[in-house]
Amino acid sequence: MRIEIVAVGTELLLGQIADTNSAWLGEHLAAAGIGSHFHQAVGDNHQRMVLAFRTALARSDGIIVCGGLGPTHDDITRDAIAEVMNVPLERDEELVARISSMFTSRGREMPPSNLRQADVPKGATIIPQTKGTAPGLICPLGHKVIYAVPGVPYEMSDMFDRGILPDLQHRMSENEEATGVIASRVLRTWGMSESGLADVLAGHIGELDVPAGNATIAFLASGIEGIKVRVTVRADDPDAATGLLDAEETEIRRILSDAAGDVVFGVDGEAIEHAVARALAVEGLTLGLAESLTGGLASSRLVNVPGASRWFRGSVVCYASEVKFDVLGVPKGPVVSEEAATAMAEGARRVLGADVGLSITGVAGPDPQDDQPPGTVFVGVARPERATEAVGFTVPGDRERVRQYATIAALDLLRRTVGSEGSPPSARIFGR
Amino acid sequence: MRIEIVAVGTELLLGQIADTNSAWLGEHLAAAGIGSHFHQAVGDNHQRMVLAFRTALARSDGIIVCGGLGPTHDDITRDAIAEVMNVPLERDEELVARISSMFTSRGREMPPSNLRQADVPKGATIIPQTKGTAPGLICPLGHKVIYAVPGVPYEMSDMFDRGILPDLQHRMSENEEATGVIASRVLRTWGMSESGLADVLAGHIGELDVPAGNATIAFLASGIEGIKVRVTVRADDPDAATGLLDAEETEIRRILSDAAGDVVFGVDGEAIEHAVARALAVEGLTLGLAESLTGGLASSRLVNVPGASRWFRGSVVCYASEVKFDVLGVPKGPVVSEEAATAMAEGARRVLGADVGLSITGVAGPDPQDDQPPGTVFVGVARPERATEAVGFTVPGDRERVRQYATIAALDLLRRTVGSEGSPPSARIFGR
Repeated sequence: MRIEIVAVGTELLLGQIADTNSAWLGEHLAAAGIGSHFHQAVGDNHQRMVLAFRTALARSDGIIVCGGLGPTHDDITRDAIAEVMNVPLERDEELVARISSMFTSRGREMPPSNLRQADVPKGATIIPQTKGTAPGLICPLGHKVIYAVPGVPYEMSDMFDRGILPDLQHRMSENEEATGVIASRVLRTWGMSESGLADVLAGHIGELDVPAGNATIAFLASGIEGIKVRVTVRADDPDAATGLLDAEETEIRRILSDAAGDVVFGVDGEAIEHAVARALAVEGLTLGLAESLTGGLASSRLVNVPGASRWFRGSVVCYASEVKFDVLGVPKGPVVSEEAATAMAEGARRVLGADVGLSITGVAGPDPQDDQPPGTVFVGVARPERATEAVGFTVPGDRERVRQYATIAALDLLRRTVGSEGSPPSARIFGR
Repeated sequence: MRIEIVAVGTELLLGQIADTNSAWLGEHLAAAGIGSHFHQAVGDNHQRMVLAFRTALARSDGIIVCGGLGPTHDDITRDAIAEVMNVPLERDEELVARISSMFTSRGREMPPSNLRQADVPKGATIIPQTKGTAPGLICPLGHKVIYAVPGVPYEMSDMFDRGILPDLQHRMSENEEATGVIASRVLRTWGMSESGLADVLAGHIGELDVPAGNATIAFLASGIEGIKVRVTVRADDPDAATGLLDAEETEIRRILSDAAGDVVFGVDGEAIEHAVARALAVEGLTLGLAESLTGGLASSRLVNVPGASRWFRGSVVCYASEVKFDVLGVPKGPVVSEEAATAMAEGARRVLGADVGLSITGVAGPDPQDDQPPGTVFVGVARPERATEAVGFTVPGDRERVRQYATIAALDLLRRTVGSEGSPPSARIFGR
């Protein structure tokens, strides 16, 4: 069963709001084993809506139309669906009573235009509203179907759960369609480029039985979130899907580990800051930061972790060189250097009373500093009873990208250094 | 001229990422007077991409395809476009050299799959990359056109500005098409709720001649970016549009100022950190921060401003109470209080050697602290030759929203305090 989502609203085409409904619906359809091959967005225009609905019906088994069900003059989804069904709109007296009483119970007078929401294409059934005034619609067309729901996200999701999903599941069982589930898992990596990951995994991807749809692998570069490897599987039931995902995860981790070491730092929602928190927790260590070019970005990521107050002491954001000298005790001299990174890490540890000090200094650009070009980054790690280490590398991009890459590279280095009981940092995404 | 945007990527259909590129492109096309009647999203599947491109070409004058230009096996936009054009792919040796040298300059070996990015449909021209390795494409088809750009947002927007927009404008001038322009301007506010803004501006919105399309007003709550008031106008040429926007801006500022004071902090791309930078520059003051619950978020926003090193000294992120006591000299006692905020602001000023100290302390949640509920925030401002001021207020939301609101509220307070030569902070969005 293939369902196409059609988002309605000129504001979507003009980019005045981003279409989050389609993403939500796509995710929840997939979780129920229902695929989408296409999404569309169309403005509040009768002819173009009719064309979009017909296009969708021609290439999918059904449509979910999102938006255009409100009471105002530009809410014309009902009319466009009626034309596609080739039926008239009929005013539903039960809906008239329900909408009227909703206004009465709130002590408000009902604007007459609100009764437009009681107009229903002949042959359609209603998904009752529980949160607003616009009802949803289930409109059969031969063996296909058009669903219509409001564009307000919480009304949309409520009607999907109550009205659309049960109806879709009923249709699938009538068709005796093997439903199954689509499930995916994301392995989050740092230390290899997107194309490097693809090359290392190329042999494995070639072995996957893609036509049977059992597993597919895709890559997504996500800035400060690292590079994601997404595995998607199709299976008869959730348990089987989990089994397939577990097997794929194990195999991918093995291949990546053989090629480049410990590059997988998390799964699904686990960001680099969670990996850092885990590594510190294992050793029972607290952390203090000294940040120059990242300006507090690394610190603001770390406090996202629930319970960060147990291990995170704080950060000295030493944007001005004098703050490095005066607060952290960095010796006067170039501040974009291994020596400065070392002194900053030790200073952070001492000043903030932390077990581990992590420092980040470098050049965000656009101008060079201390004869170093933009993108130059030095990271230092100071730990108890060990010599402080510092490494330098280069990251690409404009100011913001440099900051993002410097942050994730530094946190990844910390995760590896703490977690590996002190082996020197190895593979990194950008060589120097 | 009607351009359809086709976003490519299975992750979009599965709802794993929201499609922000289409919104960005829609907005920037409209600003150039180019409409979109439809958007589509399609997965990484050759046949379905071909169908989506053909559908778009049948109902629009051109397409912008976004995504699927990377180096990996699931990046097949080039192949699908070649099929729609009915031409072969040809390897561009100049691109081969450029991509190879990019890897050489970073001291890395180029994975062979990267050369896929040098394959170009015969007859297409290149939009050179300046930020990554995947070039964009301009592919003529009779009197229509397919543009292809990478899905990475900053690569996409750069190629749109450099390659697509000039080509579209050239095509429009050749067709002697009466274009007209749609232009909009965003006034960025802090200090009133979205419904408060709507109520205050309701009379003015009622007077606007909406059917003639001269001006429309919309509201958008944007978290750390404040609440945006967007004015959109349609006019014959850019000068006329600017005139209409200027008149609207003046009127809206007047109405808001009469109702709630200085709530407009910026226009279009001017974020709250730019407003802070401007206020400090006028007085020639430097700034130091002490951040507790915001964990470096305020600091990381400030360093986004070009030239921040001229006025930004740094921040003491004092997440642990001991850091407040030991580094900033806050007296032992409750750290979520006016007294603590005052001492933190003075400590930041002294420790960081700044003219102005700004402090933020509070409870991000989920648990209370110092008997204060989540959402409690205290902000302090220490300035030369003035008594240090601190105010408390409450913001709604989960941990992340609390941090975001606390950050923008604190920076707004700083902007007003510095800019107004010391009048006490007045209107704020959340009362206490």
